[in-house]
Amino acid sequence: MSNDPFLAKLERARAAAKTLANVTTLRKNDALEAIASAIESRVPEIIEANALDLERGRENGIGDGLLDRLRLDEDRLRGLAAAVREVISLPDPVGQIVRGSTLANGIAITQVRVPFGVVGAIYEARPNVTVDIAALALKSGNGAVLRGGSAAEHSNRVLVGLIQEAISSTGLEGDAVQTIDEFGREGASRLMRARGYVDVLIPRGSAGLISTVVNESTVPVIETGSGIVHVYVDASADEEMAVSIVKNAKTHRPSVCNAAETLLVHRDAAERLLPRLARELIGAGVELSGDEATRASVAGVAAADDETWATEHHALEMGVRVVDSIDEALAHIERYSTRHTEAIVTEDYANAERFLAEVDSAVVMVNASTRFTDGGEFGFGAEVGISTQKLHARGPMGLPELTSTKWLVRGAGQIR
Amino acid sequence: MSNDPFLAKLERARAAAKTLANVTTLRKNDALEAIASAIESRVPEIIEANALDLERGRENGIGDGLLDRLRLDEDRLRGLAAAVREVISLPDPVGQIVRGSTLANGIAITQVRVPFGVVGAIYEARPNVTVDIAALALKSGNGAVLRGGSAAEHSNRVLVGLIQEAISSTGLEGDAVQTIDEFGREGASRLMRARGYVDVLIPRGSAGLISTVVNESTVPVIETGSGIVHVYVDASADEEMAVSIVKNAKTHRPSVCNAAETLLVHRDAAERLLPRLARELIGAGVELSGDEATRASVAGVAAADDETWATEHHALEMGVRVVDSIDEALAHIERYSTRHTEAIVTEDYANAERFLAEVDSAVVMVNASTRFTDGGEFGFGAEVGISTQKLHARGPMGLPELTSTKWLVRGAGQIR
Repeated sequence: MSNDPFLAKLERARAAAKTLANVTTLRKNDALEAIASAIESRVPEIIEANALDLERGRENGIGDGLLDRLRLDEDRLRGLAAAVREVISLPDPVGQIVRGSTLANGIAITQVRVPFGVVGAIYEARPNVTVDIAALALKSGNGAVLRGGSAAEHSNRVLVGLIQEAISSTGLEGDAVQTIDEFGREGASRLMRARGYVDVLIPRGSAGLISTVVNESTVPVIETGSGIVHVYVDASADEEMAVSIVKNAKTHRPSVCNAAETLLVHRDAAERLLPRLARELIGAGVELSGDEATRASVAGVAAADDETWATEHHALEMGVRVVDSIDEALAHIERYSTRHTEAIVTEDYANAERFLAEVDSAVVMVNASTRFTDGGEFGFGAEVGISTQKLHARGPMGLPELTSTKWLVRGAGQIR
Repeated sequence: MSNDPFLAKLERARAAAKTLANVTTLRKNDALEAIASAIESRVPEIIEANALDLERGRENGIGDGLLDRLRLDEDRLRGLAAAVREVISLPDPVGQIVRGSTLANGIAITQVRVPFGVVGAIYEARPNVTVDIAALALKSGNGAVLRGGSAAEHSNRVLVGLIQEAISSTGLEGDAVQTIDEFGREGASRLMRARGYVDVLIPRGSAGLISTVVNESTVPVIETGSGIVHVYVDASADEEMAVSIVKNAKTHRPSVCNAAETLLVHRDAAERLLPRLARELIGAGVELSGDEATRASVAGVAAADDETWATEHHALEMGVRVVDSIDEALAHIERYSTRHTEAIVTEDYANAERFLAEVDSAVVMVNASTRFTDGGEFGFGAEVGISTQKLHARGPMGLPELTSTKWLVRGAGQIR
């Protein structure tokens, strides 16, 4: 074991992960149930720690969006425990056979899922992520090294302690889950270069955090979550559906990455739909910035500029642009999208299929709220994050995305 | 288009790749057939260019292993054309549905395969890789930016020119395949940082090249090929099978990554098998370095040291060690393996299954030559490389490994 306390933690996680790789599903599920029960039985203690984080957050003047994501109340904790139980109910990906065949020479090849080893996560002020990632890592046979950020330090310390105790209480190695919050920014930097200790690193948070991790890591990274999400209302869109989807996509939970940031409306639908869309959004507290055509048809809309289209607001703010055609909508999306989620509202079959084929984003939708881009909604249980890269995983990541594979080759003496 | 000639090439590849993404399989196959025919009809011209590279290689004193990998003769070119035709016969991964379901609320979600966009490759002195990667990229709807290294510069220039002409002759955009050899080392460095231009980067070559690419790239990397490959001969191994597999794994083509570098023999089989194994290897021209136990039972074996076990020789050299148990074999492999391929030769069921479960390598074999770790042998057609990382792809990579996915979501107005 290393004398360096940081590396020692990583080594403990790695050694514990090695023991998890060949543990039965039943034993992993026992540990998960222990975690869920511990969350429920220790609600007051968790909320107390969270209150310290919230208080410090308010003192430091962090925004409402961040405060909302930091907050743990009894409902959210029961939701977290339920999410852990949902992971119990999910199939264990480890040992699943992905594909296989018998070669002409009689050799049988089988590709099976195996754990990565140790999963690292760097995120900001979202203590629910601590539980989500620990649960998904455990079920998929991985260790987890978590850097949750100073804004959620008290909450994370209580949660990781509780998770370690719960795992150990069932006879598995609690060391598999580690927090490195106490090592501060330096710890995050070291985690990014911990090749050989950590097999994959998942950043969740602001665009700045993600770009730092992508640029500085030598550990393979899965880029997640930054979402400049578009809803395009086509000429043929149904009025009620357009209003309902746009309002839901923007206002249901504006602080999260699948919330819409930009509304594009076809010119032929602008007169029919834009005044009502704007009225309902403004009525729900949304501040609109629009192009000239939008401002000409709706009062109380600020002037949009290039920054409007290139910003993820995480708040009740939205850019609105009138486009001449679906081509112009596709070009706008191609230029400004972070390739997370885009939706079209349309009654036109050809435009729906064209939008699905040509938009190069992790999730492309027809006639549904962008809020559905979510591991829970997709039926994956708790979610590791939403990958916006193309390598390994794209879109909501669940258990299989936390595994690698290996090939098993069974022969009878074959040579080339 | 950029004024910078390097970026202009990347932009041309990207623009051409965008047109390939939605091209039918039939049209891509026509272009592949044109490439295969062009290779066959231009054999003398390719061999002439290759002769210049071989001559310069000999002048620069590069080793026999490298020279062998650099060489193109008529047989190998016919083999390359055949490999391209095998890619024609493979299913097109683009548009394949990976999985999907209908959610409780009626939303249908479908995960489909889509091209990455542009695949970059950095490799050394293997002109066959130029054709392999171009063919696999084309079939999977991707562009390819190739940096094949100065040692194969003449061969690669002729091959890429021929590929571009062949693609264009069928009406697709030949610009989809680009070589950046003319930009030298600076071009390779820039390619590693070409995030936004290149979607994934595949290094193939020496451990030094791979580690440079892994450490310097901001583009996502798939690490390939470095192979310190072990064959473990268990106590119960059949003599004829052990001799045949060890000899084949070491001598069939020693310059490639799936050739064995280290032989581990169980103590209980050493007396029975080691003298004959050593005699046959030495008879085939292999220089052996061994531990004390090996040297005590076989004459003419040099002393092995830590470097012996940690070196990929790419030549007729092999380390030999006698181990006390399968545990010691597993520990040796855990310490020195590059996680490419390891094989056990055994008649013991429990040891076979234990080896398969516990060795953490891309390919783990029982009673077969390590030379079978190969895209062609696995039935993938020509191969992009053998991934030794855990993210995205592990082991031989074929067409599906050159694609990403996206989620298509079809709703009827659902909101959360």
